[in-house]
Amino acid sequence: MASTDPATASQPPPLTADGVADELAGTTLSKKQAKKLAKKEAKEDRKQQSSASTAAGRDNLAEADPFATNYGDVLVEEIQSKAISGREWTEISALETQHSGQSVLIRGVAQTIRPVSKKMAFLVLRQYMSTVQCVLSVDKESVSPQMVKFATALSKESIVDIQGIVSVPKDPIKGTTQQVEVQIKKLYCVNRSVPNLPINIEDAARSEKEIEKAEQTGEQFVRVGQDTRLNYRVLDIRTPANQAIFRIQCHVEDVFRRFLRSEGFVGIHTPKLIAGSSEGGAAVFKLDYKGQPACLAQSPQLYKQMAICGGFGRVFEVGSVFRAEDSYTHRHLCEFVGLDVEMEIKEHYFEVCDIVDHLFVAMFDDLNENCKTELDGINKQYPFEPLKYLRKTLRLNFQEGIQMLKEAGVEVDPLGDLNTEAERKLGRLVREKYDTDFYILCRYPLAVRPFYTMPCYDDPAYSNSFDVFIRGEEIISGAQRVHLPELLTTRAEACGIEVKTISSYIDSFRYGAPPHGGFGVGLERVVMLFCALNNIRKTSLFPRDPQRLVP
Amino acid sequence: MASTDPATASQPPPLTADGVADELAGTTLSKKQAKKLAKKEAKEDRKQQSSASTAAGRDNLAEADPFATNYGDVLVEEIQSKAISGREWTEISALETQHSGQSVLIRGVAQTIRPVSKKMAFLVLRQYMSTVQCVLSVDKESVSPQMVKFATALSKESIVDIQGIVSVPKDPIKGTTQQVEVQIKKLYCVNRSVPNLPINIEDAARSEKEIEKAEQTGEQFVRVGQDTRLNYRVLDIRTPANQAIFRIQCHVEDVFRRFLRSEGFVGIHTPKLIAGSSEGGAAVFKLDYKGQPACLAQSPQLYKQMAICGGFGRVFEVGSVFRAEDSYTHRHLCEFVGLDVEMEIKEHYFEVCDIVDHLFVAMFDDLNENCKTELDGINKQYPFEPLKYLRKTLRLNFQEGIQMLKEAGVEVDPLGDLNTEAERKLGRLVREKYDTDFYILCRYPLAVRPFYTMPCYDDPAYSNSFDVFIRGEEIISGAQRVHLPELLTTRAEACGIEVKTISSYIDSFRYGAPPHGGFGVGLERVVMLFCALNNIRKTSLFPRDPQRLVP
Repeated sequence: MASTDPATASQPPPLTADGVADELAGTTLSKKQAKKLAKKEAKEDRKQQSSASTAAGRDNLAEADPFATNYGDVLVEEIQSKAISGREWTEISALETQHSGQSVLIRGVAQTIRPVSKKMAFLVLRQYMSTVQCVLSVDKESVSPQMVKFATALSKESIVDIQGIVSVPKDPIKGTTQQVEVQIKKLYCVNRSVPNLPINIEDAARSEKEIEKAEQTGEQFVRVGQDTRLNYRVLDIRTPANQAIFRIQCHVEDVFRRFLRSEGFVGIHTPKLIAGSSEGGAAVFKLDYKGQPACLAQSPQLYKQMAICGGFGRVFEVGSVFRAEDSYTHRHLCEFVGLDVEMEIKEHYFEVCDIVDHLFVAMFDDLNENCKTELDGINKQYPFEPLKYLRKTLRLNFQEGIQMLKEAGVEVDPLGDLNTEAERKLGRLVREKYDTDFYILCRYPLAVRPFYTMPCYDDPAYSNSFDVFIRGEEIISGAQRVHLPELLTTRAEACGIEVKTISSYIDSFRYGAPPHGGFGVGLERVVMLFCALNNIRKTSLFPRDPQRLVP
Repeated sequence: MASTDPATASQPPPLTADGVADELAGTTLSKKQAKKLAKKEAKEDRKQQSSASTAAGRDNLAEADPFATNYGDVLVEEIQSKAISGREWTEISALETQHSGQSVLIRGVAQTIRPVSKKMAFLVLRQYMSTVQCVLSVDKESVSPQMVKFATALSKESIVDIQGIVSVPKDPIKGTTQQVEVQIKKLYCVNRSVPNLPINIEDAARSEKEIEKAEQTGEQFVRVGQDTRLNYRVLDIRTPANQAIFRIQCHVEDVFRRFLRSEGFVGIHTPKLIAGSSEGGAAVFKLDYKGQPACLAQSPQLYKQMAICGGFGRVFEVGSVFRAEDSYTHRHLCEFVGLDVEMEIKEHYFEVCDIVDHLFVAMFDDLNENCKTELDGINKQYPFEPLKYLRKTLRLNFQEGIQMLKEAGVEVDPLGDLNTEAERKLGRLVREKYDTDFYILCRYPLAVRPFYTMPCYDDPAYSNSFDVFIRGEEIISGAQRVHLPELLTTRAEACGIEVKTISSYIDSFRYGAPPHGGFGVGLERVVMLFCALNNIRKTSLFPRDPQRLVP
């Protein structure tokens, strides 16, 4: 069975785990060690023979089959770090027409298994975002009818190793990413999935459009609901769209980090366990910390400001943010990944807006250029229009925004906040007038911003703050902060915050504090809105909302 | 006073915040807007005049001084995003001899202020990790005795703007990083620190060696204790060593991420709020999640494995890890930053060790090459020997390790764990024999590893696991994981874990699970041990231990 090497026989002898140090440190075996090794090897031989016979006994078909060693279940010990065979696996994404005629070894998930006859079957093997069609056809050198039977009896989503010859079919292959086929010579099941999956990957990967189209012809496809998806997230995230979403998320973080590093920012990590509530106001998760009352940070706000007071100049943090709010919307989570920035400013909070502008334009450019496969993957299941954005990001004042709304017949309190509906409407108006889905709205009323927001120099009813919008939804909040302890105290009091609970924060500004500002953005929201997805749960790997704490 | 531009007068007119959209979106002013703007400008003029007179009234010296506009406190509105002056600031780190004769504008912290006479004073200005000596000397063009008095009355650590001419002194300057001086022409205080700082930065930055040397000559320096440092962390982190430590920490994360991305890993984020305890065993922080019992993740272990089952192939996570253990050691924190890796393996957990090997050698190389200034900064206060590591990381077996200890007279339970003392001892033995401070110890006894660790194929008393050591301290734990749900159930039961509490985790392996393994490492420990620092609290920005929750 599979205890022989499925790829080639002419490989260096396997390294036993016990030989490690000798092999790697370049030392030679002592007599005692050699004796021990010989003893162990003898033991292994006995063990192998015994497991081989057990395996053979398990599968009666194999006994009568001259090609029995070309297929079967891999024995547990084979995937238990028994040996390093030296075999080379090829990634499915790397299978190109230039491999034609070559023998390759691939490991992947048996996505579909389609028997054609007792002598032939097709398998689609998937690895990450790539798929390849594999053909199993009875021949006189390696493939028996029993092998075809073995293959077609495999349950979908099982992990298999296939060794085969690459060929290029005449007609293009629909339904797989790779445009070659693999003629299977050996096939081993590495890990079997249960026969009845709670979610079918094909169902989970289908677009609403496909489902509707099928319905028109009388066919009925299964719609996999959001909750079912999240309950079986391990299966759900195998779809091409989900594989793409989380790769894009990682890419967003890459660009965020790389851009800020190139601009002299230092990445920091601040505590999530804090005494008192981090910003006051919104609901926090409370816990007992070694007998002291504590809570989870709702943002790294106070700590990133302390890092600025500590002389780091420009800092950012990528970290967990916790909000115990009872928000049951498409855009709120109880736990998300915050991308936070704080920086010294020389004289104007527009220095912060400049960073937002350059960072996000660089990010969108990078995604469009380097994530084409991923964006296509998402588009197939969840079609969306590419984000429109300007080379230099539009900045409007809050007052200008409400004026635009007024002219369009929407009355908004000039010193209040915009509600979700008004934000959407303004997004549409801005798109019409300025041809962009991405813009900055500056100079918000002071009353709707946190206590640490710097008031405007010329009108204390307004503040040196901004929100940033993508497709009519708020994604970033930023501002100049109050760095003057007296003003900070006054502002905290005015906002109804008990000053003594934040005294260590206020004290941080007494030892020489540079003027500064910053912003925060949710990683999940960036991905959701860039790809125009309709629910933040789609861009959180294991989302947490008021009703969901598992898996 | 400082309401005039301290750098040059010939700058473009300031942009008012109200002019934003016009300026940036390229639209022209409407009649109404123009009228509004004119009105606002008039108002601003009045306001400026009024604040200038207030400021003048505040400082009687200024009235008699023809150079009164060359110094003073910056008015609040000047640092309240009033205008974008277009002035250019130079970073102190960029001040080189080639600037000689040029006028520069710098902002920094007044680290030391030393009056020489009524006509002369020296200021050392600090920005991040750089310092420059500035000379204030009465002349006939710009500097008055009143200005010297103003400067010498400033409290240390105040933020100041200095405009001056760069000069190159004949003798090298000791005590500053930059080898040029700035002849001060204008000096404005942006933000005043309190006169009595709870920590003196010079005291906090002094090495133990310097203190002892001084003591021998009868001089007495203040030793700043760890708790005082942490209580006033905002001041403590301004020392060169601390600035360096957290820059190195960021660099470690850069390399971690960059290396793994180049090896096909995807960065993910998993929830920190979980139902039940994340691994069983160790103490967890419990909390109430919307009426459900929950706890904080002690590691992303189960979730990163689920990501592998979800088809991501290779993943990593940088995120908060919470441990409620009562550990009062130099190397334990209640909250730290975990660097976690999980990956499919084809046949052997040495594939994981290979990643550890290549990743950390790349990281150490990179730190040594690109963080020279930072390493020097740490070395000055906390001298340490550079880390010794091999081009190919040494791998020893646990059994070999205990044999080495035995030969050195240290008896260790062959199926138990190594205690801290034994680890240190083994570290010294390995260094003597193999000339390395960094090595991997493989094949630990199964009994001392978590339930999800894969047993060895040939001896169930051992496991496919490893620890990694730096300077005799454990820094990384890794292993092949059990991907077979039946074995996982058996192992959980054997370890006394209630299987139903982890059923969703076990179920993840029923839908086709690839063999896989991974490792975890604490970011703070990497930095601590690479730099041979003696306490993990030195490498956590705001550390959390059983007794510390603030700041």
